Amino acid sequence: MKNSCFLILLFLGFSLYAQKIERVEPPNWWVGMNEPQLELLIYGENISSYTPSVNHANIQLIEVKRTENKNYLFLNFDISKASLGKFKISFSKKGRRNNFTYEYELKERTKNSKNREGFDSSDAIYLITPDRFANADTSNDKVKGLREITINRKDDYARHGGDLKGITNHLDYIQKMGFTAIWSTPVLINDMKQSSYHGYAITDLYEVDPRFGTLEDYIALSKKATEKGIKLIMDQVENHIGSEHWWMKDLPTSNWVNFQKEFLQGTTVITNHRRTTNQDRYASEFDKRLMNEGWFVSAMPDLNQNNPLLAKYLIQNSIWWIETLNLGGIRQDTYPYPDKEFMSQWAGAIMLEYPNFSIVGEEWSTNPLLVGYWQKDAENKDGYRSNLTSTMDFPMQKVIVDGLNEEETWGTGLVKIYEGLANDFSYSKPNTMMVFPDNHDMSRIYTQLGEDFAKTKMAVGYLLMLPRISQIYYGTEVLLSDAAKPGDHGLIRTDFPGGWKGDKVNAFTGKNLTKNQTEMQSFLKKVLNYRKNSEAIHSGKTVHFGPENGVYVLFRVKKDETVVVILNKNETPVELNLERFKEIGLQGKTIQNIVSEKINTWQKTLKLNSKGITILTTKM
Amino acid sequence: MKNSCFLILLFLGFSLYAQKIERVEPPNWWVGMNEPQLELLIYGENISSYTPSVNHANIQLIEVKRTENKNYLFLNFDISKASLGKFKISFSKKGRRNNFTYEYELKERTKNSKNREGFDSSDAIYLITPDRFANADTSNDKVKGLREITINRKDDYARHGGDLKGITNHLDYIQKMGFTAIWSTPVLINDMKQSSYHGYAITDLYEVDPRFGTLEDYIALSKKATEKGIKLIMDQVENHIGSEHWWMKDLPTSNWVNFQKEFLQGTTVITNHRRTTNQDRYASEFDKRLMNEGWFVSAMPDLNQNNPLLAKYLIQNSIWWIETLNLGGIRQDTYPYPDKEFMSQWAGAIMLEYPNFSIVGEEWSTNPLLVGYWQKDAENKDGYRSNLTSTMDFPMQKVIVDGLNEEETWGTGLVKIYEGLANDFSYSKPNTMMVFPDNHDMSRIYTQLGEDFAKTKMAVGYLLMLPRISQIYYGTEVLLSDAAKPGDHGLIRTDFPGGWKGDKVNAFTGKNLTKNQTEMQSFLKKVLNYRKNSEAIHSGKTVHFGPENGVYVLFRVKKDETVVVILNKNETPVELNLERFKEIGLQGKTIQNIVSEKINTWQKTLKLNSKGITILTTKM
Repeated sequence: MKNSCFLILLFLGFSLYAQKIERVEPPNWWVGMNEPQLELLIYGENISSYTPSVNHANIQLIEVKRTENKNYLFLNFDISKASLGKFKISFSKKGRRNNFTYEYELKERTKNSKNREGFDSSDAIYLITPDRFANADTSNDKVKGLREITINRKDDYARHGGDLKGITNHLDYIQKMGFTAIWSTPVLINDMKQSSYHGYAITDLYEVDPRFGTLEDYIALSKKATEKGIKLIMDQVENHIGSEHWWMKDLPTSNWVNFQKEFLQGTTVITNHRRTTNQDRYASEFDKRLMNEGWFVSAMPDLNQNNPLLAKYLIQNSIWWIETLNLGGIRQDTYPYPDKEFMSQWAGAIMLEYPNFSIVGEEWSTNPLLVGYWQKDAENKDGYRSNLTSTMDFPMQKVIVDGLNEEETWGTGLVKIYEGLANDFSYSKPNTMMVFPDNHDMSRIYTQLGEDFAKTKMAVGYLLMLPRISQIYYGTEVLLSDAAKPGDHGLIRTDFPGGWKGDKVNAFTGKNLTKNQTEMQSFLKKVLNYRKNSEAIHSGKTVHFGPENGVYVLFRVKKDETVVVILNKNETPVELNLERFKEIGLQGKTIQNIVSEKINTWQKTLKLNSKGITILTTKM
Repeated sequence: MKNSCFLILLFLGFSLYAQKIERVEPPNWWVGMNEPQLELLIYGENISSYTPSVNHANIQLIEVKRTENKNYLFLNFDISKASLGKFKISFSKKGRRNNFTYEYELKERTKNSKNREGFDSSDAIYLITPDRFANADTSNDKVKGLREITINRKDDYARHGGDLKGITNHLDYIQKMGFTAIWSTPVLINDMKQSSYHGYAITDLYEVDPRFGTLEDYIALSKKATEKGIKLIMDQVENHIGSEHWWMKDLPTSNWVNFQKEFLQGTTVITNHRRTTNQDRYASEFDKRLMNEGWFVSAMPDLNQNNPLLAKYLIQNSIWWIETLNLGGIRQDTYPYPDKEFMSQWAGAIMLEYPNFSIVGEEWSTNPLLVGYWQKDAENKDGYRSNLTSTMDFPMQKVIVDGLNEEETWGTGLVKIYEGLANDFSYSKPNTMMVFPDNHDMSRIYTQLGEDFAKTKMAVGYLLMLPRISQIYYGTEVLLSDAAKPGDHGLIRTDFPGGWKGDKVNAFTGKNLTKNQTEMQSFLKKVLNYRKNSEAIHSGKTVHFGPENGVYVLFRVKKDETVVVILNKNETPVELNLERFKEIGLQGKTIQNIVSEKINTWQKTLKLNSKGITILTTKM
């Protein structure tokens, strides 16, 4: 039983109940939360035969819930008047000698925890797959007792040894590149037989995967990142768990996971992935149920968030990590798959505790209607109200790629990008959305653009200028590619060069990078560092002009700062007539290219190099 | 000067002012309208030098407006208290002998005119290009005095001779086919040098093109159609006129048309067609102006509806035709091109007079966001409120074609149709939208589907089952094709076989039709006639199931009537397991195929023929 509580409890000397209680979750809580109630899951053999009680002036045990599984107890406390410190829970039973007590701790919250700020459109997020970024601690490469022990860098689907310390050790690099936040894919334990490196099959929601490090390592990463002005975003999964989750060996209730009966009979029912059923007024009940209750894959049991005990468990788990890790945000996996009323409740509960927090949800759809549906301020006709502060902008990602790859005609090419951005009219707050050139689940942007270096800079440079939160996947700065097997997940998540001792190429130091890799890294560094302090980009007005002759121009304006973004798809240099842009008011102004740093005056025309992106600013 | 007023006035013997007034528009009005004011355009040489007055107890001349062109006067009356009949307008000037009077008529409205009902989801509309449907009156084939005289059926862009009587004479056919409404492309005069057959370059907004017939022919068509339960929908154009419109020879004001200065200097400024600028919060002023004020093509001057005199003129013109022709609806061309505030005012003014009327607007976009923006009940974030009761469903048209043409994979094929229909969640009232397999501006559906007969029946059959107003272009029932030059406008608008004396093939009688043409016509007739009386289709609940193995199933349900629509893309027969559809409650019920009329029982499985559409009903 891999439970950190267990060890702590042993240490505290409660030897008697060590035999009785294997888990108490959440392992601790805090005083001063807005939510007055706390639910504890108590797990231990035949624990439901005990009667729990609390004798405390300011803490009330409101309710004790038993399930059909005698090894579980769910205790519901009112802790709204509690002070910090430990309190005792007594467990009694006929025959006194079996009685015992359990000490539970209510901690003090970090100062100003409630007012923590999430990420927003001033942020550029570095997305990392920790197994593939840097291996700083080789002692945790292989951990005995886990189901998958081997590491093999030659196998795209095996563990490669990257860890939390690998990220912590390279915070300087990340900071200097100009990123202001890190989103790492999940690092909680995936004690699965295979492919455990990706992290989305969590087998204990309160335990860090020892192959990535310890809880202390995770806290250390957060602390050091915060010191460098980098927010830490945690990747959480409410929809499913890994099939080796301890619950699955001893299910708490008859409906803890969906299609549980089938699982107990040795089969699994997989989701139909028909995500439109969440919105579709004509969707059949059959399709809706299969979508939301079917399992993501057969190794990922689908949690039944309609069970109120589980719902509360999941909400508390999310809050526990925010408070414990001092998080700057949550990324929520597979947002349309869990019960949508629960997701609203979940996000609402988090936002109640942290009103300035940010949660970004993954709706992998290129249809703006579906993405918009999940946004906090959406006025959905079915009455659904979401509490999600941010959605991923898959529609914009697609039009950027299509627009760059397509031939320029009246209806194709750059106009796709222009019209895609025009869809912002349908969103209440487009700048709360997160845009990205790619992520850990899709081909590398360099690959999506046919390894066209100029187009890659255009895609990345353009999206960093948008009224959006931006996210870049690690290695984009050195043109990582999955062209050998496009779309292959293991290959997409290639090792970051320099993350392993003995790597011949080292992107951290620049050693042995190709000319293009060096140029991309330098380009991105300049753009990100400009972006970091640009109010025009963070919150300026946006004006763009319909593409003409393969050239598309977008402006971001705030007070004295005007940023000009020009995408030129022509294979030859272009003399751009500036007459059309008169309304921006740049006539006669001095402008600087943020990459080349060349200074110029905005006059009648502007010379553009062949195919590429030009970013100019009035702020020098 | 082709002005019917002129002749009437002559007849009335006001010979003196015959020399003074060439036009009074609208030529008459009605009492009992909701709008209390009436604006008359008076056109005549130096007419502005006269002072008009009215001496009438119940009619007030509120305002006389003069423009920089002395040949125009705009008179604004309050007629809210007027009774029906004629009243005199006196025109006086220094030197009595020049004074004259003009008699203007206020007519009685048709009984119940105000409460007329427009088209709705119980309607199936037959779209006709009158020049290409049937030539009943050869005497009007060539009309002297017009700019385009020749007719030539071998030239796709020349006049072919079809006329209003051609439609009137075939109302029986249209009715028996099962259509409940006719939308004919414009029949107002297009006295243009070429391509005048299409009707969208109107040169007098109060005159029927004599090559199509007379106003009386138009009224007769409407009257006979109404008798047969067929509504008449008029195609109107607020955005532009033909460059040979009489206004263009003697423009009323310096801003009557947009980019007028350029026109007077011998050039034209064409729209950029960037329709997203109507919605886009980032659109430049430059692009917005070019979109809305640029000319549709150089032969179509763009009207400036921001001129209040013109705005009122256009609104009154639309109402004049509704009242004169006893219309059952308006189809408005190029909806996103005119000034959008005006379009809201225009539609609002019509709906004020006819609260149950219908207006369908053409936003040719496959993006549901753009289409939805124009709908009456849209809650647009920019505050724009539309009064348009119906929009054309180009997004649905596209997914039907794509869905049938694409290979079946998890994300392509029928699923496109299923997901496209799911977008209905974003519309307030999806059943106010008009869906169609094709229209006069796009390739024939048979051509779009690669001349695949089964797919053509699937497309047409499916869309007729949707919660939509449906529209079919003439000739779809006999598989008209433009495969020889796909997308060629002239060819799309092929002559309807049998519409011309001596035609070897006659679709009205069935003579010499191919086997497939006969089958298509019979199929459509059965489906349309079933649809005509099906409450399940008109207003029933819709339930559909995600496509599986190339089969997509949709149900329409109202009370005892359940309609089952099955699209099967497999090249071989399929035994469909009905277990999945249990929630519809059809177990053990008797069902009839509406085409083959075969009767069956809904049991465990259903045998489907290879590729095609199956439509079943519980109502026999």
